[in-house]
Amino acid sequence: MRNLKITLAYDGSEFHGWQIQPGLATVQGALAAAIARVTGEAVLPQGSGRTDAGVHALAQVASCGIQSPIPAPNLALALNDVLPASVRVLSVEEPGPEFHARKSARAKSYRYRIHRGAICPPFLARYVYHHPFPLDEDAMGAAAGAILGEHDFTSFAAVDPEKGRDDEPASNLRTIFRSVWERQQDELIYMVRGTGFLHHMVRNLVGTFLLVGKGSLAPDDVRRILRACNRSTAGPTVPAQGLFLVSVEY
Amino acid sequence: MRNLKITLAYDGSEFHGWQIQPGLATVQGALAAAIARVTGEAVLPQGSGRTDAGVHALAQVASCGIQSPIPAPNLALALNDVLPASVRVLSVEEPGPEFHARKSARAKSYRYRIHRGAICPPFLARYVYHHPFPLDEDAMGAAAGAILGEHDFTSFAAVDPEKGRDDEPASNLRTIFRSVWERQQDELIYMVRGTGFLHHMVRNLVGTFLLVGKGSLAPDDVRRILRACNRSTAGPTVPAQGLFLVSVEY
Repeated sequence: MRNLKITLAYDGSEFHGWQIQPGLATVQGALAAAIARVTGEAVLPQGSGRTDAGVHALAQVASCGIQSPIPAPNLALALNDVLPASVRVLSVEEPGPEFHARKSARAKSYRYRIHRGAICPPFLARYVYHHPFPLDEDAMGAAAGAILGEHDFTSFAAVDPEKGRDDEPASNLRTIFRSVWERQQDELIYMVRGTGFLHHMVRNLVGTFLLVGKGSLAPDDVRRILRACNRSTAGPTVPAQGLFLVSVEY
Repeated sequence: MRNLKITLAYDGSEFHGWQIQPGLATVQGALAAAIARVTGEAVLPQGSGRTDAGVHALAQVASCGIQSPIPAPNLALALNDVLPASVRVLSVEEPGPEFHARKSARAKSYRYRIHRGAICPPFLARYVYHHPFPLDEDAMGAAAGAILGEHDFTSFAAVDPEKGRDDEPASNLRTIFRSVWERQQDELIYMVRGTGFLHHMVRNLVGTFLLVGKGSLAPDDVRRILRACNRSTAGPTVPAQGLFLVSVEY
């Protein structure tokens, strides 16, 4: 049995999220179908984590065991031949038998794109959250900095229906290494890197930072919300389409 | 009656082309529905020309007469409120009673995007033609230059089912002012500006230039194909999704 590490990019607009679901287009389902078509083997590739419907990935990672002797680079080409254009295999590697896309992950990076222009170009509509209204971007930067380090992120976590059903860590403690807002022309982009992220955590953080940007909360309120360990103290969940899984580190 | 000039961008992937068709999503239909919803008036905006299914526009222009007293800038905002995100009104102006989006047009510019990378990012799949195979880009540049000036473009025109039914010019003579290929990172982009373009003309030109890039034709063959005035002498029609109407000049 060979253990594969598959790195892939996808446009989440065309999928009901990562996780396989009967009768629905999912990224995991599309990848499993492509592997079956290329190798004849029925395997379920495990992702580094689930992404929700509409969330994109620049470099999601999945692992699975296969028997096929097809060399890894050829496998990448063959998978791209049968996958829809909305999913692209960027590489197939063989990292050894111990590698597991989720359990071996040490850090993840996400990006959330907000379009600040008066008119959102139609070509970006699926990839950004359009918010042309006034925002105090400096205050949002200060709020983002307040989550650096190790914290219990219960206040920013959706109740996860999968929790306890698999081997996900039961704790809501996560460490954030980077948390900044950057301006790139008409876009205001949140960039975050941490040991892991709870369900909806990035979208709930962005929703809270937007409340700071609008003046409804002060940057320091983020610390109070963290301490409360109560979802109802934080801001709303922003739309999925602005969110990108940027990379997974091992 | 006020005469409006409406400039709009759209993602053609989501439409069956510009021209209104019963029961199908079209850009003209979406714009007419938005105008009806905002002003209560049933008008059919006339485009500078039809774009085919899958073809995009950075700045298509349409004109129509309305009675509504809503000021032009407010009309632009109101139309964007009711249009799908895949169509954006960039401006509404009042150029005077003589203006007609098609009849007043003096020049148009198009762009055709070819992605040359080994893997086409999923976020570009709807906006480029993926062609990772070898191409002689210098020869393609020479071929593009061969169409500059006034020519009968019959060899590059699809049979137009609308021809003769309205007041389109019967002649296939057009003047090309600019015709170049440009490299922008992984993309090879054809940029063309001329007095007008026949049905499928840009896609047939690109299909012919690709035959030159592959070595099946020499750059000079383009002159022979022009003189033949016979569609069967030119290359195939490339896919719609790489084509953008860039601007219309008046």
